[in-house]
Amino acid sequence: MRLEVIKELDSADPFAEVRKAFSIPVNKIYLDGNSLGPLTLVAKKRALEVIEQQWGNDLISSWNLHDWINLPIKVGEKIGPLLGASSNQTICCDSVSINLFKLITCALAGNPERTTILSTTNNFPTDLYVAEGIQRLLGENRCRLQLVENHELNSALKQKPGVLLLTQTDYRTGEIFDIEELTSQAHANGTPVIWDLSHSVGVLPLEMDKWNVDFAVGCTYKYLNGGPGAPAFLYVAHNQQENCVQPLSGWMGHKAPFEFLLNYTPCNGISKFLSGTPPILSMSVLDAALTVYEKVDIHQLREKSIQLTELFMSLLSETGTLRQLQLCSPISAKIRGSQLAFAHQNSFGICQALAAKQVIADFRSPDLLRFGFSPLTLRYEDIWLAVEALQEVMAEERYLLPEYNKKLKVT
Amino acid sequence: MRLEVIKELDSADPFAEVRKAFSIPVNKIYLDGNSLGPLTLVAKKRALEVIEQQWGNDLISSWNLHDWINLPIKVGEKIGPLLGASSNQTICCDSVSINLFKLITCALAGNPERTTILSTTNNFPTDLYVAEGIQRLLGENRCRLQLVENHELNSALKQKPGVLLLTQTDYRTGEIFDIEELTSQAHANGTPVIWDLSHSVGVLPLEMDKWNVDFAVGCTYKYLNGGPGAPAFLYVAHNQQENCVQPLSGWMGHKAPFEFLLNYTPCNGISKFLSGTPPILSMSVLDAALTVYEKVDIHQLREKSIQLTELFMSLLSETGTLRQLQLCSPISAKIRGSQLAFAHQNSFGICQALAAKQVIADFRSPDLLRFGFSPLTLRYEDIWLAVEALQEVMAEERYLLPEYNKKLKVT
Repeated sequence: MRLEVIKELDSADPFAEVRKAFSIPVNKIYLDGNSLGPLTLVAKKRALEVIEQQWGNDLISSWNLHDWINLPIKVGEKIGPLLGASSNQTICCDSVSINLFKLITCALAGNPERTTILSTTNNFPTDLYVAEGIQRLLGENRCRLQLVENHELNSALKQKPGVLLLTQTDYRTGEIFDIEELTSQAHANGTPVIWDLSHSVGVLPLEMDKWNVDFAVGCTYKYLNGGPGAPAFLYVAHNQQENCVQPLSGWMGHKAPFEFLLNYTPCNGISKFLSGTPPILSMSVLDAALTVYEKVDIHQLREKSIQLTELFMSLLSETGTLRQLQLCSPISAKIRGSQLAFAHQNSFGICQALAAKQVIADFRSPDLLRFGFSPLTLRYEDIWLAVEALQEVMAEERYLLPEYNKKLKVT
Repeated sequence: MRLEVIKELDSADPFAEVRKAFSIPVNKIYLDGNSLGPLTLVAKKRALEVIEQQWGNDLISSWNLHDWINLPIKVGEKIGPLLGASSNQTICCDSVSINLFKLITCALAGNPERTTILSTTNNFPTDLYVAEGIQRLLGENRCRLQLVENHELNSALKQKPGVLLLTQTDYRTGEIFDIEELTSQAHANGTPVIWDLSHSVGVLPLEMDKWNVDFAVGCTYKYLNGGPGAPAFLYVAHNQQENCVQPLSGWMGHKAPFEFLLNYTPCNGISKFLSGTPPILSMSVLDAALTVYEKVDIHQLREKSIQLTELFMSLLSETGTLRQLQLCSPISAKIRGSQLAFAHQNSFGICQALAAKQVIADFRSPDLLRFGFSPLTLRYEDIWLAVEALQEVMAEERYLLPEYNKKLKVT
């Protein structure tokens, strides 16, 4: 495929305008928006406003004047539409880990006869660590984590576990679960579901309400571009909210926090899932970044994501580079998120050699090279340039150079 | 006392230089630094650096390049000296509520025979809500919250509770507990202690190590000026760390988070108390703000805090205003934090009328008017001006005006 043809795709890209909302480093091809989304201009503007005007000048009165007190609700309402969630079911707070703790304990409390948390061995590790923490805290007679392979889920569900805990998009391979189908299977066995949408939200069309999902969590600093460590979100369906009292009960989830009452009475509705004071600066920046999504048709965005990913694959194939890498992602775009993973014994070195050419991918232990395709900011030309760089790195075996094989703190 | 005399105190103030590190609104007398500390110039500078350079330009590589991965440890090590804590015992993460959950469950797990969380009815409500959440989650046979009056603590400790949970500085009256004395009493009964230092840190000399404190938590957006909702901290003494495995086990507390292992193995040391991804922007700003404390002698700062508070009291008395308000704080500065509280049936209106005169205090339900004295930023002249404004508000009964009695979302 010639570069000219690819540039025509960029000319016709309906998201070319949206890309202008971002501050993207010149010459860098960033294929890691699935780890940390790039900076938007509105986010930078908002950070300055919050620091100078709200904190600096208006100080404590900003809780009223700039409505800091309702920021978790406001941000939740902006994320809701991206989940296919109607109002009052999504809220922004804490981290994914903390939110999972709240939701798993709530799901289990709903039916104390059932004690199993069912999940898969390829779930995102931190989700399993949280489940393990609950098991350790409550004891195995009240909570037991059971891990199975994907293909064993159906039969394991027939054992009627207390809750099904899954991540829609596999963080390595990008393989996606059919949320509607699995939720329906779980419900047929009386099991509520918790979906982790961290690698899905902002790039896959989601329908929490329509699919009858009970609970969900997710991350805002990947495709949602909320900034490093931006607070997470959680979703609780209306029909699950009433019975839940989550155990991390702090003042923000109290019905009347400014009456400073001795006893905890949870808020009505989704606000009862709040705990302590949120990091206002980080959450405000996320709030601003989310405005970019207001103009985005998520189905159209999914189309572009698939085109970028398929283009990457076909260019890899055309250049012969694909023969040197082992594809670990599904071949069918239909069951694949916006990422591709390849196994190679020198993945770490390949990743570093690419970075030296300003192509940013990531390495996942032990041997995976992972490329994320953030369709709001990537151009088709970027894909062409990335494959060109990868082809050179592979052809010249640059990944063997010692400077690309020094251990990093974070990989 | 004449204003000239007071201005001389300002000329001799050893913290006059430190004050220049802050961006304080002109004409505003801010007596609410105990709720939200003001902006420092370094914090603003750091926010821009993190947004433009680290996030905007260096993107995902900042986890290594700018050492985001160690930020919780780095910030913890800056807070440690303010607690009288030697290295590797303090870490920055999550909110006070979340951190209390970790520490209470750890303290109880240390001795399963003992199930009582002992606290006081005037503890900060959110601390009690967290304890209540643990009781609800574990069941009353494994955890029971017992609330007593301050004077009953000694006898209640003799019942050998599982943990003693106290806040050093009463958020309303400012009365302070003797940490050393109560910790020693608790230990004599085999009970570990958790101290909430939220209204103490940065203004009272603290000696966690010397006083043999087991666990502590605290807030960084009050006297530490970390910014709205900046992440909290926790302290765990070396001798308590080894046996603890906290239940909110997320990837940041894992021994090898980037190996993406299936099972949770906690870090050695204080890092095991981390859970999920921290809000880097908010935490970086806190990190910068803490540099202000590097030049501060906390004993000298405590002296100034006492002088400011005593000056406020004597001016109130001199002007006759004290007769119209009921002091709720201890008269002795020795057992009082850096705040004063007064009861008045129109406290809400007084607070709003003062705000209209650019004197910022706060109202605490049901009838308290609270003044915080942040000694790093307040001048003696500010105290004089604040009392002048209060005198006018009281003499003219301006607090009765309807515009000062409109309900706010946050009070």
